[in-house]
This record gives sequence, C-alpha cells and structure tokens, in this order.
Amino acid sequence: MPTDFAATKAMFRLPDGVIYLDGNSLGPLPRAAANKMAHVIKDEWGEMLITGWNKAGWMAQPTAVGDRIARLTGAEAGHVVMGDTLSIKVYQALASALELNLDRRVILSDSGNFPSDLYMAEGLIKSLGRGHELRVVAPEDVADSIDESVAVTLITEVDYRTGRLHDMKALTAKAHSVGALTVWDLAHTAGATPVDLAGAGADFAVGCTYKYLNGGPGAPAFIYVAPRHADQVRPALSGWLGHDAPFAFDLDYRPGAGIERMRVGTPPVLALAALETALDIWDMTTMDDVRAQSIALCEQFIAGVEAACPMLTLASPREAAQRGSQVSFKFADGYAAMQALIARGVIGDFRAPDIMRFGFTPLYIDAADVDAAVAVIADVMGNRLWDAPEYHARQTVT
Amino acid sequence: MPTDFAATKAMFRLPDGVIYLDGNSLGPLPRAAANKMAHVIKDEWGEMLITGWNKAGWMAQPTAVGDRIARLTGAEAGHVVMGDTLSIKVYQALASALELNLDRRVILSDSGNFPSDLYMAEGLIKSLGRGHELRVVAPEDVADSIDESVAVTLITEVDYRTGRLHDMKALTAKAHSVGALTVWDLAHTAGATPVDLAGAGADFAVGCTYKYLNGGPGAPAFIYVAPRHADQVRPALSGWLGHDAPFAFDLDYRPGAGIERMRVGTPPVLALAALETALDIWDMTTMDDVRAQSIALCEQFIAGVEAACPMLTLASPREAAQRGSQVSFKFADGYAAMQALIARGVIGDFRAPDIMRFGFTPLYIDAADVDAAVAVIADVMGNRLWDAPEYHARQTVT
Repeated sequence: MPTDFAATKAMFRLPDGVIYLDGNSLGPLPRAAANKMAHVIKDEWGEMLITGWNKAGWMAQPTAVGDRIARLTGAEAGHVVMGDTLSIKVYQALASALELNLDRRVILSDSGNFPSDLYMAEGLIKSLGRGHELRVVAPEDVADSIDESVAVTLITEVDYRTGRLHDMKALTAKAHSVGALTVWDLAHTAGATPVDLAGAGADFAVGCTYKYLNGGPGAPAFIYVAPRHADQVRPALSGWLGHDAPFAFDLDYRPGAGIERMRVGTPPVLALAALETALDIWDMTTMDDVRAQSIALCEQFIAGVEAACPMLTLASPREAAQRGSQVSFKFADGYAAMQALIARGVIGDFRAPDIMRFGFTPLYIDAADVDAAVAVIADVMGNRLWDAPEYHARQTVT
Repeated sequence: MPTDFAATKAMFRLPDGVIYLDGNSLGPLPRAAANKMAHVIKDEWGEMLITGWNKAGWMAQPTAVGDRIARLTGAEAGHVVMGDTLSIKVYQALASALELNLDRRVILSDSGNFPSDLYMAEGLIKSLGRGHELRVVAPEDVADSIDESVAVTLITEVDYRTGRLHDMKALTAKAHSVGALTVWDLAHTAGATPVDLAGAGADFAVGCTYKYLNGGPGAPAFIYVAPRHADQVRPALSGWLGHDAPFAFDLDYRPGAGIERMRVGTPPVLALAALETALDIWDMTTMDDVRAQSIALCEQFIAGVEAACPMLTLASPREAAQRGSQVSFKFADGYAAMQALIARGVIGDFRAPDIMRFGFTPLYIDAADVDAAVAVIADVMGNRLWDAPEYHARQTVT
C-alpha cells in the first residue's frame, strides 16, 4: 500500500501561513510530541523517579530507538545506538576507524562535508599527535582520491550546500578495494533518501535526528558500526554505559557487546521521547515512497523556479539520482532574497556565500505547497522585493 | 532572608507515599517542568521552527544556563557552558588539561571516583598512545600522591559511595605547588554543597545536572574552565558550535572565545528547558542555606538510624564537614534491605558491594521526612523484613 502522505502531513503541526522548506535544517513538530513529553515528564520522571530507568525502559531506549533508525537506514537490527550529538559521534566513529587501520595516516574528506565533521577530525588528529593528515578534496574528486594511503574516508553522503549525493555503495567498494575504511555521515540522508548501510558494506555511519527525522531541536545523534567490526572496535569515548556491566562499578573498562560499547553517558531521556513521536510517523511510510515523492516535488520545484526566475542558477545536480532531498540555487544577493522569502512565509535557508537552499520533505510538504512556494519566489525575484534594506542586515543564521 | 524550604518543597511534584532519598541519583520533577516544556515544544519549536535558534534564544542557551550553574558552584560568570554528558565533559577537560602539561604523564585519581571518569581517562590514554598512566589511589591518599609526576588530578569532590568530601581548595593548592593541574568532577557537589571554583583556583570542573540540580533524566552536563586557561586550551572535541564563527562554515577550525570553545554540537534545547525550571527553584536559595539544612538533616538521620539499627555501620565520615549531602551505611544484605525499603516508600539506592546510600536534598526533604524514613528503616531492619525472597532477586539497578 503506498504511503498516505496526506495522513503523515496531518501528524505535524505546521504554523499557519508558512511553507516550510527548511526541514533539512530543523524538522517541524509532530503533533503528538507535547502529549508524549507531558506523559514522560509527569508519569515517568514525576512518578517513577529513579525507578524509571528500568520501569519506563529509559536504560534500553538508546538501542530500542536505534533499531527504528536502523530500519530507515538499511542497517542490521541491533547495530545502531542513540546518544550525544553528531559531532561527538563523528569523533567516536573516526577514532575507532583509525585504530582499525593503524598503519595509515590519511583521513579523506571533501569540501562539501559539513564543517563540524572536518573540525572534529582536525581535533582528533591533533590529540593523537601521530602525523595523521586530513585530506580535503572537491566532492567530485573523492573517488579518484581514495588510494592506499587512506585509512578512512569521512564523507557526508549529501552535500549540505548543493544537495549533491555521493554514491555510497561505489565509494565504499572503492575504499575497501584499497584497504580503507568508511565513516558515512547521514545528516542529510537519514529520512531523506533510501540508505542501505548493510548492502553498501559501510563500516561506520553517524547521523543526527533533528533534520529530516523531525526529532526536535538538539535531538540526539546515532551511530552504526558494521557487525564485522562491532565487537572489535575500541571506543575512544569509553563511558560507563558502554561498559559490559555498568552497574558493577568496576574500576576498569571492559567494552559492552557490539554496538552497546558505543554508548557513553546517561541517555537523553526527554529528547528521545520527542524523537519517538517523530519515528511513529516514519512507521507510516517507507524510504522508497519518500524518495519517489521527494523527487517529484524537487523536479516540480526546479521546473517552476527556472521558468519564473532566470536570475537563479541551479546549484544542485540536475539529475535527480545525483541529488539528495534538497534543491539549491545560487544567487549573489541570496541572503537578502532568502530573508524576503521568509518574510512572506516561504522558509528556506541561506548558506554562504551565495546558496539559497530549499529542503523537500514529503511527510509534510505536498505539490500544492511547492506551487505556492514557486509563486512567492517568482514574485520576490521578479519584482526585486529583496532590494528592501531590511533584508540586508546580516545576523546569525542557522 | 533565610531560605523558605517549605516553599521550595512545594515547587516539586513528589509521589504520594514516597520519601525520596535518591535525589543524589536522579532529582525529582519540578512542577513547572511540564508546562515549560509544553511551551517550548508548541510555541517555540512548533511555531518558530528554525527561527527559534535566534528568536527563542536556543543558540545562547548553553552559556545562559551555564551562568546559573556558575552561581551555584562559585565560578566566574561567563566561564561555564552546558552540553553533552558528564562523561564527554570529563574527556574534554582531561584532554585539554593534559595538553597544558605536556611533559608529564600521570593522571591521578582515586578509587572513590565514579567509574565512568576512570573509563573515560583510560580511553583517552589509549587514544593518545603516549604512555600516560592513570594512577588510582585510595581517597585518603590523594593528597600525599600529588607529586611532580602528576600532569592532572581527576577527582570527584564527593565519593559516590561513602559521601566522603575532598578538600578542593587544599588539593588544588597542593597540585599547583608541584605544577599539576586539576579537573574536578562536581557530580555530587553541584547543588549539594557550596563549591568555590574561583576561590579554590580550580583549573577545570565538570558536572551533571540530573542529580542534586534536578534537571531530569539525561539532563545535560556542564564544564568550567578557569579564566586563566580559557583562551589557551585547545578543545580536543572541536565541534562547530565551539568555532569562532560557526555560521561562516569555514573549512578550518578556529576556537571561539573562552568557554565558547568547549561547546561541541547542537545544544539539547528541550533538555535545557526542563533544567531551567529546576534552576528557577535554585534561585530561591543559596548554597550556604542548603548546606546548613543538609547537615542538620544528615545528623538527624545518622542519629536516628544508629539508635535504631545497630546492624548498620556508618560508611560516611562522621564529621559533617567531611561529608557531602549523602549518608551511607554498610550492610552485607544491603541490596535486599534497600529493596525492602523501596517497597515501603523509602527510596535510597544500593552500591555494590554493600553500601546503602541515602541522599539529603533540603529543597524537598525536611525533618519530618527524615523522622518518617528512620521509622521505616527501623522497622525493616529491626524485624528483618529484608529476608523476604522477593527482595533478593538482583536486576539492573541505577
């Protein structure tokens, strides 16, 4: 049975007068989140107090929720765990991967990777002090740059600026063919495009849940370790909840079984509760259905904008198969133009220096929304409405 | 004006029939938390969506809340920031401290430190691969063990088992006198006893907020870096929100000013909102008032239990000044005895091998509660009620 996207849309609270094309930055609110949170706060925290760790299942939550992420990312059940932030999980995966490839010194990434991934790699390299090199190439040069010097690739599957989609399966195969490992950042693919971690043979993957997955501001991250590595890796961030027996309070660390060892500290119970309401909506669909609908919406958007706004240059791949679930246009006055759009209820975002970015999220954006957004964009661009001075004052954007 | 502890008690939801002496493990629910969370979820996340990062102040939340923790821990304003879990913050502080003392190889800790701190140190040492040593001594031997081989001390101010309180000022002075740095874990002191980070000259401090501070299950951690180090330290966990200009999306990391650089990933907005309601209650008191009342409650409890239960041996220091805000008793059948107490509404916890642990939290525990708890303990112990088989089946405890 195909997904009923009208039904999934009804599960979200979307503000009146807004067409939200920024779900690739922060997903909107599942209507069920407030009640679920009230339940967890009042009936679990308030009534169970410390016994909630067992009675309410808080202690098992990171792996239970991880299994729901596994379904959406093609991971084997029991090999994804929630916790921390994406940056921390990048560090954890990278540190583990480097130890599995001790005689190599290159971390290969690309300039379309999200800067925080590069920063975390840089910090890790300095801490290790063993002469590792972070080699950053252009996105289109990644495949050719994977050689026998590479210990691990650190690639975000979808470029946060252009939406360009890497071929996870091909790059992973290339990496393995020369003895390199892979860390995949799924920030812009989990919930956006079908991911097949097991099928691609990915070694490690990490992702966040506040973008396409709609888990809320600051929702926890996840990490995947391939079954063949899961009992081998040493967690650099070896916290007590990754211990084989956390409540034995041993003085020495002994890693837990498989993915359990990638847990670190106390789970973020409240944040996980909000995420669970989003995952309930994800249970109503499949990634294949979402992908088909996402492509239809993106194609409709590109055609509409290109027809109406010749001053905007498509910055995303034209070929749908090479694109994630976002469409970006280049425009020199993109910051001001995006402010003008936001003032009219079309919310996308801007990425320096000149990228206007629009995310497409079939769970709550439909063809009528795309038509309406295109009409507003045509008006703003065609009538130079961004010229108004109030749209030019820069402030922190996200 | 002295603290009105009846007023602070009224701000918490405590289940009927329960005397909660486990706030040193997970604090109870501030009554305001559910409404505050509903507001943040519906009016901020739901209505503001991505603009909440600026409009609702989410981006500034980690330092704004950090300032409220600073007041309770004697830190200079602007030198505490929230985020991650305590284990992650231990790693971050320790990695930074080691780099400030590059020619030394010893991390000194004690066997009363919480195991996760030791595990994180062990993981860091293995990652660094530079021959660092984690030297773990008995709590009473820490002072004499601080010598010129020590790069950094990693000490939890209050022993989670016995409640024994280290002398932060004296140990810090000793460390500095031999050129060592200090990382203080305030898990059992923030909100429990007065802490004077600035006055003691502490170098780094970290802590959690779900125990005495009542921030909720999985509430975020905090980190303090002394002003003299704050612009010098290199964050090993160098994430984009610790970057000097996160939204410039530079490819290279450039640390932010002072404590800002210890931020890593996206802030846990929902969890911080819950914590804020707890901190509103903390605004009604001072740590000096809390300490005076805590000592009174602990003394009352010790006297009552010792008079009624000769089979229980005090495991905490008898001298109030050497104790945190908990009282522990040793008892061979402590696990079963604690289960029997919990079944009768007196909630403490058990720490292997034989520690029955009771936390005293003046914000919501008063003298009448202590009397009532003592009566239940006297009944359970005096009548050997723990002998019932249902109290002996071990399961995961927290």
